[in-house]
Amino acid sequence: MSRIYNFSAGPATLPLVCLEEARDQLVDYKGAGFSIMEASHRGKEYDAVHNQAIENLKTLMRVPDGYEVLLLQGGATTQFAMIPMNLLGADQTADYVNCGAWAKKAIKEAGSVGRVNIAGDTAADIPTRMPANGALQLSDDAAYLHITSNETIGGNQYMDFPHSPAPLVADMSSDILSRKLDVNDFGLIYAGAQKNLGPSGLAVVILRSELAERVPDNVPNIFKYSTHIAANSMSNTPPCFGIYMLSLTTQWMIDRGGVEAMQAINERKAAKLYDAIDGSDFFTGTAVPEYRSAMNVTFRLANQDLEPLFIAEAAEQGMAGLKGHRSVGGIRASIYNAFPENGVEALVAFMQDFAEKNG
Amino acid sequence: MSRIYNFSAGPATLPLVCLEEARDQLVDYKGAGFSIMEASHRGKEYDAVHNQAIENLKTLMRVPDGYEVLLLQGGATTQFAMIPMNLLGADQTADYVNCGAWAKKAIKEAGSVGRVNIAGDTAADIPTRMPANGALQLSDDAAYLHITSNETIGGNQYMDFPHSPAPLVADMSSDILSRKLDVNDFGLIYAGAQKNLGPSGLAVVILRSELAERVPDNVPNIFKYSTHIAANSMSNTPPCFGIYMLSLTTQWMIDRGGVEAMQAINERKAAKLYDAIDGSDFFTGTAVPEYRSAMNVTFRLANQDLEPLFIAEAAEQGMAGLKGHRSVGGIRASIYNAFPENGVEALVAFMQDFAEKNG
Repeated sequence: MSRIYNFSAGPATLPLVCLEEARDQLVDYKGAGFSIMEASHRGKEYDAVHNQAIENLKTLMRVPDGYEVLLLQGGATTQFAMIPMNLLGADQTADYVNCGAWAKKAIKEAGSVGRVNIAGDTAADIPTRMPANGALQLSDDAAYLHITSNETIGGNQYMDFPHSPAPLVADMSSDILSRKLDVNDFGLIYAGAQKNLGPSGLAVVILRSELAERVPDNVPNIFKYSTHIAANSMSNTPPCFGIYMLSLTTQWMIDRGGVEAMQAINERKAAKLYDAIDGSDFFTGTAVPEYRSAMNVTFRLANQDLEPLFIAEAAEQGMAGLKGHRSVGGIRASIYNAFPENGVEALVAFMQDFAEKNG
Repeated sequence: MSRIYNFSAGPATLPLVCLEEARDQLVDYKGAGFSIMEASHRGKEYDAVHNQAIENLKTLMRVPDGYEVLLLQGGATTQFAMIPMNLLGADQTADYVNCGAWAKKAIKEAGSVGRVNIAGDTAADIPTRMPANGALQLSDDAAYLHITSNETIGGNQYMDFPHSPAPLVADMSSDILSRKLDVNDFGLIYAGAQKNLGPSGLAVVILRSELAERVPDNVPNIFKYSTHIAANSMSNTPPCFGIYMLSLTTQWMIDRGGVEAMQAINERKAAKLYDAIDGSDFFTGTAVPEYRSAMNVTFRLANQDLEPLFIAEAAEQGMAGLKGHRSVGGIRASIYNAFPENGVEALVAFMQDFAEKNG
């Protein structure tokens, strides 16, 4: 068995020890005589897994009282719709920051539900960046302010989050649990699981309990946060296997020292790559330095014609998934929590070698 | 390793060979160097899995031209909302047959979206049954007629499907691929995966293409069937691991002779259990014989006080999940496609033994 270095933006690499545990338990879960995939979601085996995953998230993020942690199907894209369906009243406006491809999708979906104000717009900027927090054009009495904390495609990430009188709603799909933050600063945090948390098919939503009360009556029950709060995310059959994987990856994070430890490792990994980019005229980072993502390191070769060769030769050396998103091209190295530091070192060595050979 | 007989109603038992294959490929998928859970959904490894799952469903169900096969997140419960959001116009009525607990949930959710007519109602009947097809009170120009082909809790199943001028929409969560049917008779068929198809966190929707065109503009994109048709169920990141399991279970069905073979085995398994029920005064079936489910065999003990002992002793002998749904009590043996015939024989032997000892 030979594991490659998988730089995929998501679904993305998972901790090897978690995959090995899942493999060892796959046919017979802890001696129960069935797979966790086959376990009734009302039985004691799955119930323990479900609550452990929620507890681990609360521990890692220090979720304060007055917040709910929900495990939902549909990914972040479903949240693009559920958030305005739950939080945006018919006579209200929601503020959105447009800072890239994912923000744009969130804005489009919110626009089908209610009134949207673009409070800041850097989506077309190259190099990529976030709008300065002080420059946002906020609405009076906005229902909420929506941001994308890390743009997976653009490689731009918020370092300091904006303040707003309205609740701050953040899509953290690609950087949740990668760094410390204070949940109290947010009304709602959400994330698709397939980057920092586990396999695809699962979204984590953390929200201030009182926000769930805003929902209009005519929203279908399945799309009301209040439905899932009342049932501890078991109103319908949850995506049990994904939640099982989440329980393993969050435990892995706790065992390694929690979010503080993850952040230290992530900053070290990202610095190695950005140093390699900045240390050579052969490479150019595509994000403004103060908004450079520690999760998705995006760059171009000075000679863009060499990019396909770069990607192909890296793949031959066991480094896959380096091709930038089809909408922007270039190179993207996604290095989430579970991406190993020696994989970053291997890429740095390859970059230097490639630059020498082709420079 | 000792596998038990798992009579759980869902999530439910899966074919052992599929679990073993998933286990063997879990850390390194076919030598790619990553798990299928870690594979980019835009990469060639996952793409092949995705299309194989869809192709297998088309083969097994003989899906005709003019129909689409979608793989969606959210389970059948999300479909309870998506169906009226897509198919029920503001000035229209949808006909629903209320034949049990699941139909009731579908009706409640549809009622939050639009106007509903109860075309037949047997939900409170004991023994459980379906309304006679000829007795349905259909609306003029209904948007569709919704049925629940098998009530997982009540143990009642349609043998012949009703006819209606409106498109027939069927929740087949607990009997899809268990028996032959003609897809042409339906406008839309849907099923949560966690009974006959794979793990939870995935729904299969098969619909006549033209029905997707009905959707009002103001429905969020993620909830429009047309969005998922246009993107071959890859508009957002699909629940990749669940679809991978679906590709394995559907291949297992094809390799064993397809739906015809499944039906023959299912009828044999169900007959053995119903014969045991009918052959003793100790047991009483809870569904009217002509509507008895081949998937969920529900019965009571003449002395209901003995039911907890029955369930406990069965569990000691490696037969788990026999407790009826908490809303109705009694005994329920769920015997989907993947449930082994020798497990049914073991339960029959146990029933006879238990009746002798306690009769």
